[in-house]
Amino acid sequence: MKINGVKIDSTFAEAFPMKATRIIITAMNHYWAYRAANSIRGFASSVIACGIEADIERKLKPSETPDGRPGFAVMIFALTVKELEKQLPHRVGQSVMTTPTTACFSGIESTVKLPLGKSLRYFGDGYQTSKTFGERRYWRIPVMHGEFVCEHTTGVCDAIGGGNFLVLGKNAHHVLSACQSAVEAIEQLNDVITSFPGGIVGSGSKVGCKYRFLPASTNEAYCPTLKGLVESRLSGEVESVVEIVIDGLTEEAIKKAMRLGITTACNYWGETRALCGISAGNYGGQLGKHHFFLEEILSQPD
Amino acid sequence: MKINGVKIDSTFAEAFPMKATRIIITAMNHYWAYRAANSIRGFASSVIACGIEADIERKLKPSETPDGRPGFAVMIFALTVKELEKQLPHRVGQSVMTTPTTACFSGIESTVKLPLGKSLRYFGDGYQTSKTFGERRYWRIPVMHGEFVCEHTTGVCDAIGGGNFLVLGKNAHHVLSACQSAVEAIEQLNDVITSFPGGIVGSGSKVGCKYRFLPASTNEAYCPTLKGLVESRLSGEVESVVEIVIDGLTEEAIKKAMRLGITTACNYWGETRALCGISAGNYGGQLGKHHFFLEEILSQPD
Amino acid sequence: MKINGVKIDSTFAEAFPMKATRIIITAMNHYWAYRAANSIRGFASSVIACGIEADIERKLKPSETPDGRPGFAVMIFALTVKELEKQLPHRVGQSVMTTPTTACFSGIESTVKLPLGKSLRYFGDGYQTSKTFGERRYWRIPVMHGEFVCEHTTGVCDAIGGGNFLVLGKNAHHVLSACQSAVEAIEQLNDVITSFPGGIVGSGSKVGCKYRFLPASTNEAYCPTLKGLVESRLSGEVESVVEIVIDGLTEEAIKKAMRLGITTACNYWGETRALCGISAGNYGGQLGKHHFFLEEILSQPD
Amino acid sequence: MKINGVKIDSTFAEAFPMKATRIIITAMNHYWAYRAANSIRGFASSVIACGIEADIERKLKPSETPDGRPGFAVMIFALTVKELEKQLPHRVGQSVMTTPTTACFSGIESTVKLPLGKSLRYFGDGYQTSKTFGERRYWRIPVMHGEFVCEHTTGVCDAIGGGNFLVLGKNAHHVLSACQSAVEAIEQLNDVITSFPGGIVGSGSKVGCKYRFLPASTNEAYCPTLKGLVESRLSGEVESVVEIVIDGLTEEAIKKAMRLGITTACNYWGETRALCGISAGNYGGQLGKHHFFLEEILSQPD
Repeated sequence: MKINGVKIDSTFAEAFPMKATRIIITAMNHYWAYRAANSIRGFASSVIACGIEADIERKLKPSETPDGRPGFAVMIFALTVKELEKQLPHRVGQSVMTTPTTACFSGIESTVKLPLGKSLRYFGDGYQTSKTFGERRYWRIPVMHGEFVCEHTTGVCDAIGGGNFLVLGKNAHHVLSACQSAVEAIEQLNDVITSFPGGIVGSGSKVGCKYRFLPASTNEAYCPTLKGLVESRLSGEVESVVEIVIDGLTEEAIKKAMRLGITTACNYWGETRALCGISAGNYGGQLGKHHFFLEEILSQPD
Repeated sequence: MKINGVKIDSTFAEAFPMKATRIIITAMNHYWAYRAANSIRGFASSVIACGIEADIERKLKPSETPDGRPGFAVMIFALTVKELEKQLPHRVGQSVMTTPTTACFSGIESTVKLPLGKSLRYFGDGYQTSKTFGERRYWRIPVMHGEFVCEHTTGVCDAIGGGNFLVLGKNAHHVLSACQSAVEAIEQLNDVITSFPGGIVGSGSKVGCKYRFLPASTNEAYCPTLKGLVESRLSGEVESVVEIVIDGLTEEAIKKAMRLGITTACNYWGETRALCGISAGNYGGQLGKHHFFLEEILSQPD
Repeated sequence: MKINGVKIDSTFAEAFPMKATRIIITAMNHYWAYRAANSIRGFASSVIACGIEADIERKLKPSETPDGRPGFAVMIFALTVKELEKQLPHRVGQSVMTTPTTACFSGIESTVKLPLGKSLRYFGDGYQTSKTFGERRYWRIPVMHGEFVCEHTTGVCDAIGGGNFLVLGKNAHHVLSACQSAVEAIEQLNDVITSFPGGIVGSGSKVGCKYRFLPASTNEAYCPTLKGLVESRLSGEVESVVEIVIDGLTEEAIKKAMRLGITTACNYWGETRALCGISAGNYGGQLGKHHFFLEEILSQPD
Repeated sequence: MKINGVKIDSTFAEAFPMKATRIIITAMNHYWAYRAANSIRGFASSVIACGIEADIERKLKPSETPDGRPGFAVMIFALTVKELEKQLPHRVGQSVMTTPTTACFSGIESTVKLPLGKSLRYFGDGYQTSKTFGERRYWRIPVMHGEFVCEHTTGVCDAIGGGNFLVLGKNAHHVLSACQSAVEAIEQLNDVITSFPGGIVGSGSKVGCKYRFLPASTNEAYCPTLKGLVESRLSGEVESVVEIVIDGLTEEAIKKAMRLGITTACNYWGETRALCGISAGNYGGQLGKHHFFLEEILSQPD
């Protein structure tokens, strides 16, 4: 299979179950809501060492937020509900509550709930108060800028982590320009995030390592500098490979993002044969139960 | 003492000893170096829950970096060398090594060293190699985008955390516009960072809390909504207070930043009496050994 | 008729015939293509004093441009083909040819043509050369950065200027936040531009003036400060009005943009009753032959 | 003479007398003041075809503007006072008065004055009013967004156009990255502007042309593609040249900008020998009376 002359490998991306929440951060204007959202999604590339994976999902107009102010939706993924429970109050406490004029709300419905204001309220040192509107409870925590309003809990749902595709090309400039365009396209979609810096991974990994203490290590089969030394998956002309990793709420959301991302990347350079191929990361099907076959995804209508 | 009509409280900022490192992140262009730097300084507001405090110190031209590529200097602070040792490999591994085309170097000299490539090299799964130029040792770790070059160690030095001042005003718009201008001015200085999102804290804290499990809580004396309920430090007209917290390598660097920040904020609104006063956060001198007296700092020449 | 509680006036926007061209500006990267495009669309608000009306239509990927480089499409409108012929070489010569690494191409097909390289080639002082690919002819003009490639001519077509709607609200903040969101939405559409700075007009005009030498003057019926002095069209609560003016290639393109812009603005503030109404500018039907009735446009599906 | 290994030609930049004004544009926030300033400086590269040369000089805090609002200073240059008189009302009328919430003030003192509100007031159709504070007179023109406040006149002074230097390098990427850094540095200075798009000219010209109707044409001696065909000033390795053109209020201001720009460009790439030389554009001393000798400028302290 080819798209605009770029070969699509006959393989699949292997993804695994995660848990996710979406929070809504609002502020007096988009500038300050962005500062908080940009902080909370920092150091959140991969659960392996960050605890969570997080990114801005989208910008919200006042009419799309609970308190009618400008905002951002942020999605946060972890391997278990317990881990999310542990990380969320630290992240929201440090990155959102500290940012002037912000408020924080649940952005997803569910039966099980994660603590939000429920944990953070204690910062009010007894001066916090709560209000209930219908089924939703909010905390008003007095702070220097005025008041930090925070919903009692946020929802949590089943999700999928590790949807991905690899882009192979002749040099880093070719590969990265095409992938930046792909990431911009994916950012327009709901229910998915790309948690790595700039949405693109330059050091994709395999499971396992010769050093026992490391759970993951460089994926040598895709390292251009090791072509002569290892059993390489790269043809001679490939000098740079990057990976776009997608976390999402559903299989459908991830498929849509993979399809849009791959077609955008393949078409970016037009007639120029700048890209050499598209592949995907998997571990022989033993790590994750979600398998996204490239050819199948790309054959489906949008 | 007054600056442009804004009253300066006769008080001091109380700061405490920290340890700091500076790393240099480079990439094929400033865009990608920024993506890595922006990730590493995320969720790094306060050591209390983030482990470290970090921010971009400044943009670097190719001629200012070890490998002659565009870059950014990032400063990272923690309470102990041990904590920095623990956090640094996670931060650099997740936020820098994953970002396409980056490299990472020490940005400060010292006898004691923190591990950088020394820890991260193992990701190379045995394919990493090292080179030594003079007294500096570098690791070349094969990755998908090509090669991640990382210096063996980075320096570490004594530093100071918690330099600060408070800006009191009639509303959040008045206070934040003036403080954004102050933060922009401070960002031009070397050897200091403002680690909170956007450089400004909206929820300044005091030491201690009625709930024993919390080490810090809202500073009620500066909360506008509590003026009637507590022993408030705020006059009737003050409806919003924010804090600018500055970490720096030396007392001089922090003094210079405080002086520049306070004068910029006080002069921002010109004739308009938008700000009500400048103060500073301290804990009666019992927390930190560094005391920055506002009137003294503001009387010194730059 | 109401949208999200905002009253839609039972009136129409009056627009008039124009002529338009689209040019494609490319460069070594989007940064430089943008510098040229941003220059050419400056001082191009209204034909009355700028000669043309121009704006960036959209960002182009390499695969969407004639030379496979990043680019921007810019649309330029004037009252006559003759005026476009006069203005175009000055605009492209000053704003595009001067910008490092750019090239310039026709972005629209037509039988009648406007000179592009046909005029600019003389800058080459005899060193220019031309090449023909199929039916298209290009000039290669030697310049300091290397070579400026410019298509011989660009197409020109019938178009419409002055599609518009007015947004009435309680203050400038309410009105402008909603309209910025509307402009962002319109910017996603093809075949239309909003030529005023930021896409929004703060000083909408009527035809005629008591001073004979001026063809247009302030539209006093919509000036909030004149409510008591003139026959005002504004209710008591309206304190700010702005106009979004849309030029487009077809009636359909303008209708689509008006519909998207109006619904985006009306929904921006959600439950908050920040906007007071939507109206449109017309001159009793005597200026332009294109009449866009708000209620009709808003009743049609997209 | 060499700076960081880059050869400085023993030549001079030839500049000529101009007239200049500075206007202050304010608005409800920096976003809208910027939209107006960005429009007025568009299509203002060179007086040859734009009538004026203009650019943003600097961002202004509320305390630096006449009405205590955020703003920008814009400088506008032309060959004669008469030409400025003719162009200014069109530029301010189309780019500033149309932009929501703006006001416009004189930013320079002088005995001779240029009309500002004096011309634009007629847009008020008789509803305009004027107020005098001290020696300054202001017009209040009712418009849809509220009121457009405009000072009666602005000052005008002697100035200099055409300060310049050339940067020669091995390719466009090398040359442009260094020059962008130089332009960023020059932008921090007062009393100077770089009016071309992005501050850099890719198609520097000489006086005269074989086609009589053109006053200027490509400077073939500096065109890399003509090295074999003409009496070239370029050595074999030079494949790209760009020019930074500086207009300023005084010789001192232009010298300072040239010195800062040249040293920033030369140091940008550090050890990498990416740049091949620095030169300057002159016409044998017959065009302009201001001669800026590179070696002299670079030998002076800052």
